[in-house]
Amino acid sequence: MDGHYALWVAYDGSAYAGWQRQQNAVTVQGVVEKTLAHIVKAPVTLHASGRTDAGVHALAQCASFTAPALMPADKLRFALNNRLPEDIYVTALEEVPADFHARYSAVGKTYAYKLYVSEARNPFYKAHYAQVKKPLDEVAVRQAMTAFLGTHDFKGFMASGSHVKTTVRTVHAFTLEVSEGLWTFEITGDGFLYNMVRIIIGLLLRVGHGHIDSAAVPEIIASGDRSRARWTAPPNGLYLVSVSYPQKND
Amino acid sequence: MDGHYALWVAYDGSAYAGWQRQQNAVTVQGVVEKTLAHIVKAPVTLHASGRTDAGVHALAQCASFTAPALMPADKLRFALNNRLPEDIYVTALEEVPADFHARYSAVGKTYAYKLYVSEARNPFYKAHYAQVKKPLDEVAVRQAMTAFLGTHDFKGFMASGSHVKTTVRTVHAFTLEVSEGLWTFEITGDGFLYNMVRIIIGLLLRVGHGHIDSAAVPEIIASGDRSRARWTAPPNGLYLVSVSYPQKND
Repeated sequence: MDGHYALWVAYDGSAYAGWQRQQNAVTVQGVVEKTLAHIVKAPVTLHASGRTDAGVHALAQCASFTAPALMPADKLRFALNNRLPEDIYVTALEEVPADFHARYSAVGKTYAYKLYVSEARNPFYKAHYAQVKKPLDEVAVRQAMTAFLGTHDFKGFMASGSHVKTTVRTVHAFTLEVSEGLWTFEITGDGFLYNMVRIIIGLLLRVGHGHIDSAAVPEIIASGDRSRARWTAPPNGLYLVSVSYPQKND
Repeated sequence: MDGHYALWVAYDGSAYAGWQRQQNAVTVQGVVEKTLAHIVKAPVTLHASGRTDAGVHALAQCASFTAPALMPADKLRFALNNRLPEDIYVTALEEVPADFHARYSAVGKTYAYKLYVSEARNPFYKAHYAQVKKPLDEVAVRQAMTAFLGTHDFKGFMASGSHVKTTVRTVHAFTLEVSEGLWTFEITGDGFLYNMVRIIIGLLLRVGHGHIDSAAVPEIIASGDRSRARWTAPPNGLYLVSVSYPQKND
């Protein structure tokens, strides 16, 4: 008998060619599917909340799947973690209703972006923070951040080649913590376009360095013109923090 | 004309087969020497304060070398960092007296050992912390640590195959900071035998897990018996923090 499950997985994306399964590259989906298939002795297809690019990390990516119900969910999680490499860890795994789909059921997502501001390279931050060499104007960055809150057509903040029905998205929260040269952005919304977070951060860095006035950001968003938001921050600072779903008793 | 220099280098050891140059493996010494040679257009040999093993990190390893004096030390450091990979960074480089030798002139060293205590794996700590799954008795560990302070014959805390004139070493300080499951040990001494820090930590973990009584540690040290201190903590938690040299005006 088959069961329908969801798993939440944390991964350090440094060593992977992103989430999505590929023929000739090691990906997080590929590794988890292969490990699952080995344990349940049947092929398994994971449906994630969305792809993450090469080098991008996740604290709690969600993926749903159907597999032979050979053991309780807890035991399956334990068996998985025993076999997964050190940079992938399944933090939760549970049975879910048959209509649960990690992508289509998702109602929101939170991403973090971490950077360190320092002229000197820090060899230990390589995989987990993006480096910014010149000081940033924190006040200007915070002011620009407010322009992203609310519902906007974010078509200027989407990498080319993506196909979506609508480019309208709502940003519910956008915060920044600064501590000893480490900057952590956190952004929550109902969904994000392809590369949207990295393009937003790219623009904020231009603002922080004084190349773009923070007062111009609302108009840049409204213009829908990708060429005015053409800086994509590197992947190693990006983390998929969480994916939200309707409460079970909704 | 040749100049005599010392450099201080920070590196994330994860991707390297240790410090020491090897024929068929990528090492930190190999990469820095090759980069230096490219810049000064002559072969360069680095003399480090000591080797670090595969996976071991450094915040400030010191290495001395002689090379054609083509440019000021500051410019040489800049050129080096421009060409070195992201996980190696030269924090300082200066001209030193001809008799300075990073190994023979050293009068002390400080190492750190970082671990996280958690049943759950943290994919982001893989390279930089050793994981301990079961809780540790902090009081017992701290008590055992005091036994290492002072001058002892540490022959029981040396990996086999090393040849040294004397196995007597003095530990000047040994501290532990515990914060939210992260444990950071720091140990300073006049020198350390091969694998000495990792063997000390290995023993402390046995104490912390209740397998060895902290009161027995002085006698284990005094016995000089490697079989009584046979646990070597993994390399990824170990950091060479600093190397000390006599003051220039001594």
